[in-house]
Amino acid sequence: MAEEIAEAESMKGTASEESMKRAASENIVLIGKKPAMNYVLAVVTQFNNGAKSVKVRARGNAISRAVDVAEISKNRFVTDARVDRIAINSEELANEDGTKSKVSTIEIVLAK
Amino acid sequence: MAEEIAEAESMKGTASEESMKRAASENIVLIGKKPAMNYVLAVVTQFNNGAKSVKVRARGNAISRAVDVAEISKNRFVTDARVDRIAINSEELANEDGTKSKVSTIEIVLAK
Repeated sequence: MAEEIAEAESMKGTASEESMKRAASENIVLIGKKPAMNYVLAVVTQFNNGAKSVKVRARGNAISRAVDVAEISKNRFVTDARVDRIAINSEELANEDGTKSKVSTIEIVLAK
Repeated sequence: MAEEIAEAESMKGTASEESMKRAASENIVLIGKKPAMNYVLAVVTQFNNGAKSVKVRARGNAISRAVDVAEISKNRFVTDARVDRIAINSEELANEDGTKSKVSTIEIVLAK
């Protein structure tokens, strides 16, 4: 569950150092609104640090970017990695006005 | 059903009656820029017409919408369907100025 917290925080732009460490220790790259190459760099770094697998996660509109990040990482930078697993899901988010809305999520696991 | 086929073909600009028939006979729903519910309706219709599986395909920014369509279809309308397979890939597209750019694609197979 720690991972979800890290994800939500990074989306709000309030990631704490602690949650970032937690995400890093589980080899998770959380996709936000920055250019795809920023996240590709994060994926490549985790593989270079010895990770055998990296989880690329996103929700909502960032899902397209997550697919870009996975494709660019495996095709251009970590060519011995492959897509190990892809899961999609839905999460319920509370809006600022108290209503709730569903948002889709994706997790792409790249593995060597 | 004609609309989503026509839409995807229009991305390539090579819509032919033949390819439209092919898409329909293979139970493919091609995600474009319309609201997700339009495509959900197409998915539900194909299952109601007896399809055992439906392929939801998208590329580029429409990928997020494809995940929405798959999630809404299986969670709200075709509750006995599950995600059978998800594949991501890259395609090379020729731009108008003759340069080429890569675009990510997704195919989500829903099956009963």
